[in-house]
Amino acid sequence: MADKIRVTVWNEFRHEQSIENVRKIYPDGIHRAIADMLNANGFEARCAWLDQDEEHGLSEEVLRNTDVLFWWGHIAHGEVRDEVADRVVQQVQAGMGLVVLHSGHLAKVFRRLMGTSCTLNWRDGDRERLWVIDPMHPIAQGLPPHFELPDTEMYGERFDIPTPKDIVFINWYAGGEVFRGGVTFERGRGRIFYFSPGHEAFPIFYDPNIQKVLRNAAVWAAPRGERIIPDCPNPAAMEAVTGR
Amino acid sequence: MADKIRVTVWNEFRHEQSIENVRKIYPDGIHRAIADMLNANGFEARCAWLDQDEEHGLSEEVLRNTDVLFWWGHIAHGEVRDEVADRVVQQVQAGMGLVVLHSGHLAKVFRRLMGTSCTLNWRDGDRERLWVIDPMHPIAQGLPPHFELPDTEMYGERFDIPTPKDIVFINWYAGGEVFRGGVTFERGRGRIFYFSPGHEAFPIFYDPNIQKVLRNAAVWAAPRGERIIPDCPNPAAMEAVTGR
Amino acid sequence: MADKIRVTVWNEFRHEQSIENVRKIYPDGIHRAIADMLNANGFEARCAWLDQDEEHGLSEEVLRNTDVLFWWGHIAHGEVRDEVADRVVQQVQAGMGLVVLHSGHLAKVFRRLMGTSCTLNWRDGDRERLWVIDPMHPIAQGLPPHFELPDTEMYGERFDIPTPKDIVFINWYAGGEVFRGGVTFERGRGRIFYFSPGHEAFPIFYDPNIQKVLRNAAVWAAPRGERIIPDCPNPAAMEAVTGR
Amino acid sequence: MADKIRVTVWNEFRHEQSIENVRKIYPDGIHRAIADMLNANGFEARCAWLDQDEEHGLSEEVLRNTDVLFWWGHIAHGEVRDEVADRVVQQVQAGMGLVVLHSGHLAKVFRRLMGTSCTLNWRDGDRERLWVIDPMHPIAQGLPPHFELPDTEMYGERFDIPTPKDIVFINWYAGGEVFRGGVTFERGRGRIFYFSPGHEAFPIFYDPNIQKVLRNAAVWAAPRGERIIPDCPNPAAMEAVTGR
Repeated sequence: MADKIRVTVWNEFRHEQSIENVRKIYPDGIHRAIADMLNANGFEARCAWLDQDEEHGLSEEVLRNTDVLFWWGHIAHGEVRDEVADRVVQQVQAGMGLVVLHSGHLAKVFRRLMGTSCTLNWRDGDRERLWVIDPMHPIAQGLPPHFELPDTEMYGERFDIPTPKDIVFINWYAGGEVFRGGVTFERGRGRIFYFSPGHEAFPIFYDPNIQKVLRNAAVWAAPRGERIIPDCPNPAAMEAVTGR
Repeated sequence: MADKIRVTVWNEFRHEQSIENVRKIYPDGIHRAIADMLNANGFEARCAWLDQDEEHGLSEEVLRNTDVLFWWGHIAHGEVRDEVADRVVQQVQAGMGLVVLHSGHLAKVFRRLMGTSCTLNWRDGDRERLWVIDPMHPIAQGLPPHFELPDTEMYGERFDIPTPKDIVFINWYAGGEVFRGGVTFERGRGRIFYFSPGHEAFPIFYDPNIQKVLRNAAVWAAPRGERIIPDCPNPAAMEAVTGR
Repeated sequence: MADKIRVTVWNEFRHEQSIENVRKIYPDGIHRAIADMLNANGFEARCAWLDQDEEHGLSEEVLRNTDVLFWWGHIAHGEVRDEVADRVVQQVQAGMGLVVLHSGHLAKVFRRLMGTSCTLNWRDGDRERLWVIDPMHPIAQGLPPHFELPDTEMYGERFDIPTPKDIVFINWYAGGEVFRGGVTFERGRGRIFYFSPGHEAFPIFYDPNIQKVLRNAAVWAAPRGERIIPDCPNPAAMEAVTGR
Repeated sequence: MADKIRVTVWNEFRHEQSIENVRKIYPDGIHRAIADMLNANGFEARCAWLDQDEEHGLSEEVLRNTDVLFWWGHIAHGEVRDEVADRVVQQVQAGMGLVVLHSGHLAKVFRRLMGTSCTLNWRDGDRERLWVIDPMHPIAQGLPPHFELPDTEMYGERFDIPTPKDIVFINWYAGGEVFRGGVTFERGRGRIFYFSPGHEAFPIFYDPNIQKVLRNAAVWAAPRGERIIPDCPNPAAMEAVTGR
């Protein structure tokens, strides 16, 4: 791992170009807003996006030089090429960190790593309160016991994911729902964090608490030890024991 | 669920036709040996195999009428068609039980449900002792604290799987290895059990303890409640609360 | 295990005698209301209470003949004798099921089994919605995706418990809180379910959904296999391997 | 947290004074051998022992100034005063790290934090191989996939502990046993690591791999965030929602 944690922020980058209201909030795209914030805080962040090139900006070389990949997608999950999705999955299994944001719950990369449908209930427009359920978790450091987002999209249970390794946040919505909104997983040597806030129509990625979560998550998800793509070795028996 | 638990035993069914030694042990195939044992014990078991038809014997109708699917495969994982593998995965997510045996750890259906490489260490020919780590687990009922298989293939750590829901068995090998050899997972509404014994060159599926595990696993994995393929509904807010 | 599951419903039984409003709701005590409901549904339920005798109605013999113990306590946790609390803990470790209700989160028996403070946030008077997070869990069978309690006491996060085995319910409160309100644990050979509803000032234990949860929990928590108090045996080595 | 991680190494310190063979290996006690190793590697380690004073060297002040407590005990668990054990438990719940070694599995502090009997199988004299099951875990950094201890005491399953947060090591013994020999837990705000090697009759704490595990564990268990003893607050409802 380099001195600075190297983050690649991947974004679908469609809403910001097609919807006036979203462009006003994120004129250079959600990816740029997140990358700028990370770069201003000691990370080495770059961007990649769906229409960047044939590989969606995610060549083998880019991924091998990425410690943590952030992923935001919504209306074009199906346009992500299977080989690129599989490449991301393999690098996570080898040790790369992955932070999946908001509507990325239905992204190919997330569903292939989870093995579930990753479906949920949703509703446009609600008020959200995030509760820190695991205050000693590295991702929760520096946060208050709970904080609010005045305008958000509701994501509610049942969220069809495997039992998480850790539940860091549970969300409350004024409309009557709850949601496991910040959850961690391990797959192979890689760490994964899913975080539910981040609807494109609201300036959520400028919120100081949300930004703190993203920074904490990048540190937490960064790989430890060597990045290894596993295989099935065929070792000899322990000689002194078996005598074979 | 019907009165009897309906099990479909799926087998690659290649070794039994191509290797004399294996045919002697399982003249009608591993699937038939397991299905006969289940049918003799109150289950309603059928068979399916790779070369049975274009769908490997696993049509939508067969799967919808299967409570628990057993899976044995080894040298032809790649020949299982992607759409059939995805169909199995979807039915597990909807509630069908899945019992994956031995070299099935690399089967498409298992890897897609796990999201990991499912690799491990292996060695032909060893002696194995299985320890019951979770004696109150339904799959362990009626078993002694440990039991042995005199001739087996060694499957050793590190086994690249997500953290299991339950670890029912840990295996010991004379050659110096250990293995989480009986582990459970939940994906969507479905229950999954992976069980490591079952190399084709040894009569392991005739062992009374192994047979008890298979029967317990079929009962444990059978679906509860309705089988549902999840989607993303868009419910209204709780009116009295939000007033919207 | 007898043909019928044998439940002992333990209650502190103080509020019902000292507070007029509570007596109106539960004239014979919370324990009697729960036991009557269980007996009307195929269980064999008895009652025990704090002031019943010197052992709070929980002699060794009573516990050995109890498959599942229900526990409701609130203002007199400190009056439960240490040796009786330890006796209950040991029987849970040996295989007896335990269902802890509402303010029982601070009971000696629960805290000793958890190893944490079991503290939480609370507030008198709120509206509660319980979400089924794990619809395939045996305790959730027959329930709708969510249901409500119009008058309840708020129990909110952070709930200081170890990571549960399963989270069956997450509660939503109109006042802005969330709570892991139905959670399971395993300790030794015993199964434990904590369920948050049940404030004495509201007729919650007459609610049909709540009653269904209690029945499901009694079935789920009933012991499988032999009840065993564990020790530290000193077995010989496997001879053929070590040759010692 | 101070600049250096402050470790207190607690030892029963009886065998080293009463058994000639043990004194030869650890002339100043197991505690001193571990503390010297930690101090030589950038930690600030002190010692405490059973007969040091009425509080076994573990006053409130000592514990409040301890980031991570190591614990070794064997024949005198019952001599540890209940109020001192409860004090340790409370500090762990508030955030202090705890590393329990070898026969400490039966220590009051460990059993009270686990809520189980913590019993196991054992045998004097065996050969042990430790397998790293979770190579990305911080406690496993810098270790080979497996390593051996030529002379050890066998600790075998079933180990009666709650499901661990992480299983870092599984042990193999020549005599035919397996053991979850390196396991983590969280209780309240504190992190706990149990590590099985460390019989007093063998120079195990001088082994370089074992020493690396101890150092990694001290870093991993050190508290993050404030140390807080939890209580049950009674907050007001979120005004804008309830209108109360």
